[in-house]
Amino acid sequence: MPVNVAINGYGTIGKRVADAVMKQPDMKLVGVAKTSPNYEAFIAHRKGIKIYVPQQSIKKFDEVGIPVAGTIEDLIKAADIIVDATPNGVGAQYKLIYQQLQKNAIFQGGEKAEIADASFSALCNYNEALGKKYIRVVSCNTTALLRTICAINKVSKVEKVRATIVRRAADQKEVKKGPINSLVPDPALVPSHHAKDVNSVIRNLDIVTMAVIAPTTLMHMHFINITLRDRVEKKDALSVLENTPRIVLVSSKYGAEATAELVEVARDLRRDRNDIPEVMVFSDSVYVKDNEVMFMYAVHQESIVVPENIDAIRASMRLMSAEDSIRITNESLGILKGYLI
Amino acid sequence: MPVNVAINGYGTIGKRVADAVMKQPDMKLVGVAKTSPNYEAFIAHRKGIKIYVPQQSIKKFDEVGIPVAGTIEDLIKAADIIVDATPNGVGAQYKLIYQQLQKNAIFQGGEKAEIADASFSALCNYNEALGKKYIRVVSCNTTALLRTICAINKVSKVEKVRATIVRRAADQKEVKKGPINSLVPDPALVPSHHAKDVNSVIRNLDIVTMAVIAPTTLMHMHFINITLRDRVEKKDALSVLENTPRIVLVSSKYGAEATAELVEVARDLRRDRNDIPEVMVFSDSVYVKDNEVMFMYAVHQESIVVPENIDAIRASMRLMSAEDSIRITNESLGILKGYLI
Amino acid sequence: MPVNVAINGYGTIGKRVADAVMKQPDMKLVGVAKTSPNYEAFIAHRKGIKIYVPQQSIKKFDEVGIPVAGTIEDLIKAADIIVDATPNGVGAQYKLIYQQLQKNAIFQGGEKAEIADASFSALCNYNEALGKKYIRVVSCNTTALLRTICAINKVSKVEKVRATIVRRAADQKEVKKGPINSLVPDPALVPSHHAKDVNSVIRNLDIVTMAVIAPTTLMHMHFINITLRDRVEKKDALSVLENTPRIVLVSSKYGAEATAELVEVARDLRRDRNDIPEVMVFSDSVYVKDNEVMFMYAVHQESIVVPENIDAIRASMRLMSAEDSIRITNESLGILKGYLI
Amino acid sequence: MPVNVAINGYGTIGKRVADAVMKQPDMKLVGVAKTSPNYEAFIAHRKGIKIYVPQQSIKKFDEVGIPVAGTIEDLIKAADIIVDATPNGVGAQYKLIYQQLQKNAIFQGGEKAEIADASFSALCNYNEALGKKYIRVVSCNTTALLRTICAINKVSKVEKVRATIVRRAADQKEVKKGPINSLVPDPALVPSHHAKDVNSVIRNLDIVTMAVIAPTTLMHMHFINITLRDRVEKKDALSVLENTPRIVLVSSKYGAEATAELVEVARDLRRDRNDIPEVMVFSDSVYVKDNEVMFMYAVHQESIVVPENIDAIRASMRLMSAEDSIRITNESLGILKGYLI
Ligand SMILES: NC(=O)c1ccc[n+]([C@@H]2O[C@H](COP(=O)([O-])OP(=O)(O)OC[C@H]3O[C@@H](n4cnc5c(N)ncnc54)[C@H](O)[C@@H]3O)[C@@H](O)[C@H]2O)c1
Ligand SMILES: NC(=O)c1ccc[n+]([C@@H]2O[C@H](COP(=O)([O-])OP(=O)(O)OC[C@H]3O[C@@H](n4cnc5c(N)ncnc54)[C@H](O)[C@@H]3O)[C@@H](O)[C@H]2O)c1
Ligand SMILES: NC(=O)c1ccc[n+]([C@@H]2O[C@H](COP(=O)([O-])OP(=O)(O)OC[C@H]3O[C@@H](n4cnc5c(N)ncnc54)[C@H](O)[C@@H]3O)[C@@H](O)[C@H]2O)c1
Ligand SMILES: NC(=O)c1ccc[n+]([C@@H]2O[C@H](COP(=O)([O-])OP(=O)(O)OC[C@H]3O[C@@H](n4cnc5c(N)ncnc54)[C@H](O)[C@@H]3O)[C@@H](O)[C@H]2O)c1
Repeated sequence: MPVNVAINGYGTIGKRVADAVMKQPDMKLVGVAKTSPNYEAFIAHRKGIKIYVPQQSIKKFDEVGIPVAGTIEDLIKAADIIVDATPNGVGAQYKLIYQQLQKNAIFQGGEKAEIADASFSALCNYNEALGKKYIRVVSCNTTALLRTICAINKVSKVEKVRATIVRRAADQKEVKKGPINSLVPDPALVPSHHAKDVNSVIRNLDIVTMAVIAPTTLMHMHFINITLRDRVEKKDALSVLENTPRIVLVSSKYGAEATAELVEVARDLRRDRNDIPEVMVFSDSVYVKDNEVMFMYAVHQESIVVPENIDAIRASMRLMSAEDSIRITNESLGILKGYLI
Repeated sequence: MPVNVAINGYGTIGKRVADAVMKQPDMKLVGVAKTSPNYEAFIAHRKGIKIYVPQQSIKKFDEVGIPVAGTIEDLIKAADIIVDATPNGVGAQYKLIYQQLQKNAIFQGGEKAEIADASFSALCNYNEALGKKYIRVVSCNTTALLRTICAINKVSKVEKVRATIVRRAADQKEVKKGPINSLVPDPALVPSHHAKDVNSVIRNLDIVTMAVIAPTTLMHMHFINITLRDRVEKKDALSVLENTPRIVLVSSKYGAEATAELVEVARDLRRDRNDIPEVMVFSDSVYVKDNEVMFMYAVHQESIVVPENIDAIRASMRLMSAEDSIRITNESLGILKGYLI
Repeated sequence: MPVNVAINGYGTIGKRVADAVMKQPDMKLVGVAKTSPNYEAFIAHRKGIKIYVPQQSIKKFDEVGIPVAGTIEDLIKAADIIVDATPNGVGAQYKLIYQQLQKNAIFQGGEKAEIADASFSALCNYNEALGKKYIRVVSCNTTALLRTICAINKVSKVEKVRATIVRRAADQKEVKKGPINSLVPDPALVPSHHAKDVNSVIRNLDIVTMAVIAPTTLMHMHFINITLRDRVEKKDALSVLENTPRIVLVSSKYGAEATAELVEVARDLRRDRNDIPEVMVFSDSVYVKDNEVMFMYAVHQESIVVPENIDAIRASMRLMSAEDSIRITNESLGILKGYLI
Repeated sequence: MPVNVAINGYGTIGKRVADAVMKQPDMKLVGVAKTSPNYEAFIAHRKGIKIYVPQQSIKKFDEVGIPVAGTIEDLIKAADIIVDATPNGVGAQYKLIYQQLQKNAIFQGGEKAEIADASFSALCNYNEALGKKYIRVVSCNTTALLRTICAINKVSKVEKVRATIVRRAADQKEVKKGPINSLVPDPALVPSHHAKDVNSVIRNLDIVTMAVIAPTTLMHMHFINITLRDRVEKKDALSVLENTPRIVLVSSKYGAEATAELVEVARDLRRDRNDIPEVMVFSDSVYVKDNEVMFMYAVHQESIVVPENIDAIRASMRLMSAEDSIRITNESLGILKGYLI
């Protein structure tokens, strides 16, 4: 019998996880919770998804012609597990209700690590999360860092990571957030919080991150320098990156390098919503010097955590092993490894 | 027997027209001409589209592993009609070859009006183009102006048009074009060329346009003021806009107003490449004062001319009537009328 | 004896008005009110300007080493008139204090028209504001509209105005405001509030405005269509624009057309903060058709209202006539007419 | 007797160097060479600077009313030394003429290192350039890297540098260059050319750089990781940065962190053209871990090389020692050390 999954917070992350849940053989989407009757709600309704709203919002939804299936509490009760994709910090308030109703829950990276029994990255610590009632999928940037670090760790033991993160300032739909013409240190303090977030999954790793916000909406980019225990060869690093699921390589030979060009590739490939949940490593950027491996990659912030949420559900509910879950998630969502282009 | 269509120039417009041709019951895509072996070429190849290249480029395509079906001349010979979607001005050079090989051709708005026997807008002058060997689909901005003007003309005779055009500066994939933080008069001379381009379809219309480039890649926006012969009511204007194919209305009630939000709607609706070939009129903006109708609308430059190209093929080849062609094009491409959201 | 002027709210507008006050022969800056101890406060302090803060903020200012001269109430008491340049809506709260302490005050366009006894545009209605205790300088966009309308009104009586406003989304220093890549109808309803704001100065004018936000920080641009009682000649329109103070013409012949290029001109001309308080009309855009005059112009939102604030102080305090005030303001601030370049 | 300096290429860099030359006690600006009669030429003329143009361009300048003092060859002949600030690669063509006429010349970073007898950074290798006929001031990014590396080298010997460079995509006045909404690897290959350019001044330094272009016009930002021979303390690194000329520290306490806010500080400080030729190190970002020093800084690309050009003139002409030249340049241009804000 499939697990009943509810999505609380149907925005950028929530709507993607909802779609992904509907593609899993072992899951059923019982409904989504929404607070404002906007176009996301209206399109969900047109797709036949059941919408639950706060008691006091029922009228607003009625007025614009979006039928309501019940209250958020009704939804939580009907589910075995909730994926909480509410805005930063709101999940912490909902946790009390999940606990009261004795439901498992998956939180997002906008919540503090302490909210959960385990922070989660499928390729790094699936097993640690097995059976945990509350799991937190780390943020988009941290998910990307963890994927590449855990991959490179297979070449030789990772001893030190230094990374610069150039963050997109807003998601494409977010028109109120800036900057319009500025770089913004995020923060002007070193290390940025991303290092600590990586440490919530790989404890004791020597990692320092610096971050800056750039006026773009499409993708983040990371510039990473990993010091390994041993000297390695470029081909070994490349080979591991080529063979790690959820990482794709992008060669310069087809002229797609800029993040806007990668989005165009996704459009031409008919990816849903032009999403690319894989970390996109620029294959020409891989540079090895003694025991240092350096490279750059692009991160599609809107979709990268979607497969992790699906795996986190399985880990929490002890549905299957890491290998099986990752394989089924990848197949159902069309997530690749190897060369994207 | 279906008409054999070739696409010369497989970029933003060409790749979309190619996809649209493949969806028509009365057309067959014989292949596309491409000059650089980039990701667009590679993905076309993976989709099974035959690629023809200039003689001297065969080697370049070979080197990156994209098989070539022949030269551009081979392609032209194999076709009944060519859709020329090469860059501005390049079509004029190809016209000589099309003439020599006695092929019909459809050109784009980047070519001068003189290149063709008729400039074309399906809703305005399909019949005028019937059987014409060379037809030019007007530019994205002009296509939008013509759609709205010809629609409003059904409410009462259009006597005067004054419009301001805020142009997107580049398509999403174009990373070399600016500006980054500026408005750029386009040109600082009034009227802009768009008025003259409208006159290539509706001769003698009193129209003045002013245009400016804004640093965005998603859509154009138009602010139009139409003076009619008679006083009209707002509801009559709205009703015509609601019932004109290729025009959709966007109500503010679902919170999608910014062009970035309209793109998000297209993504959520699973539109291919998040295209919206319909003119998107903001229904709340329709304002009527005596015999003046004013409103604002958004124009998705990458896709708006796609249905026009399909209809232009049919007009040129005398395949069917305007009504039938427009209907079949709309149905095959999922083009709506009424409220988008 | 000079008038004692206080500035409440020392941000984009406040700091410029403060500098302008210090350049007037008949005014004395008694100090400025500031709530956050940021770089604007710190630089004001280094320039020798006295800073007054809310009682509860004294400690914050102390901590970062910015000396405080007293509370905001102390400042208000020490002044004859206050220029309130606090954020939108905050002025309305302060008005109660100004009334209580029986002080005259100048408000900005972010306040409702009802806050004041007169809305103000120096070239249009200086005399109406003479001796009024509370005057509101209209917003940057409205100030620009009024300057051009009142100028063109000298050619022939203005009967109708239709204008499209392309607004800069944020000031240069504002890094939190977007959009990054979108046009945003402002609002998607016609007419925008600018028409009503123009009517607060020229009652009964038939004006309709439409507005959109573009992702740029430098300047607004307007596209205006003015219908006159009589047919006019282009040279008459140009001649009036050339001879109106606070309007400058920009010819295309020196290659400065984009707003970013106009800022570069201001930098090269060593304008303070590269401000251009004059409305910048593109001389090549002036287009006349029968009794319609159309043209486009750029508006430097940060500085355009500065001379109006100075004149409003004089009008409120009955210091001198419109002609004298405008002349002295222009001379002291280096404000031009004729060709900028 | 002052040295006669000519500027060839009067754009972003050339106009700033011209202004700086005019402020030096030991230099005289004989004139500037300009190819297009744009606003920069017009304003130079209004400032009384003599303009020399290619023979064939005299007519164009005449037509728009900019008087011409002679041909570019006349200018070169009249000078002792030429600062060549023509576009990338054009300087190489002019070198032949400088050689023929036996004139010294200073080139910019857009030229290949081989063009000159020495690549130059005042704080690193002034003495190496003494008396060299052809000197190349390295690019804006390289100048910044060299300033910080040579400064930190005083704390302890620099053994290894790893840096990520986030480049502004265009200067403020350049409206044709993009991207508008993309990050663009520059290139997607590691190391970027900046490492090699640093090595043109500090040979044998182990340095790897990665670079990306962001859609902003204001400043570059660098994220640097320097490995030293010895363990150091944060206070030692900070103290050296505080005491190095042409480096300023920016503390977060006054709320100016984003590059747009730093420009606002420059505007409020009445810096000419709001230039900041100093490297701006975020003091809160300085982070020391054993023998690694990490920090981030902003680079105003338009002005950072100006003082270097002045010093390079003195080095080439053997006018004075490094210490004296740097001191006089800094004083005449108001270049600071210590805290900017
Ligand atoms: N957007 C990204 O790039 C991204 C990437 C990774 C992780 N995340 C994390 O995912 C979480 C969600 O972010 P998002 O970008 O999807 O935000 P979003 O704003 O797009 O969506 C949030 C949704 O929650 C709803 N909501 C708001 N208040 C609510 C409440 N009290 N109860 C129920 N629903 C409520 C909103 O209506 C909205 O639908 C955050 O923790 C964020 O940090 C976001
Ligand atoms: N992009 C838009 O928004 C838009 C909208 C409406 C009309 N148009 C018009 O459509 C036409 C094509 O524009 P686009 O945006 O698709 O351009 P594009 O640059 O995206 O595509 C042009 C294609 O032509 C190919 N090409 C270049 N030179 C060629 C040659 N000599 N022979 C054959 N192919 C060649 C290029 O490789 C590229 O694939 C232009 O006339 C343009 O004005 C463009
Ligand atoms: N920025 C523009 O382009 C522009 C143009 C024309 C008119 N205006 C109008 O001018 C007014 C000020 O706008 P701005 O752009 O200068 O804003 P701003 O945010 O740059 O400055 C506002 C200042 O007010 C201070 N402040 C905030 N709350 C305060 C309080 N309770 N008491 C005292 N001071 C307080 C802030 O510290 C800040 O210094 C608004 O009404 C705005 O609509 C702005
Ligand atoms: N802009 C920057 O941020 C920056 C920073 C550091 C170094 N540089 C370097 O400085 C040099 C100049 O760049 P810029 O940004 O000042 O360029 P720019 O385009 O602003 O100015 C170049 C000037 O050279 C003139 N010019 C063009 N062709 C000429 C010719 N044949 N003869 C004489 N003059 C000619 C142009 O009219 C223009 O005035 C380049 O090598 C560049 O790499 C630029």
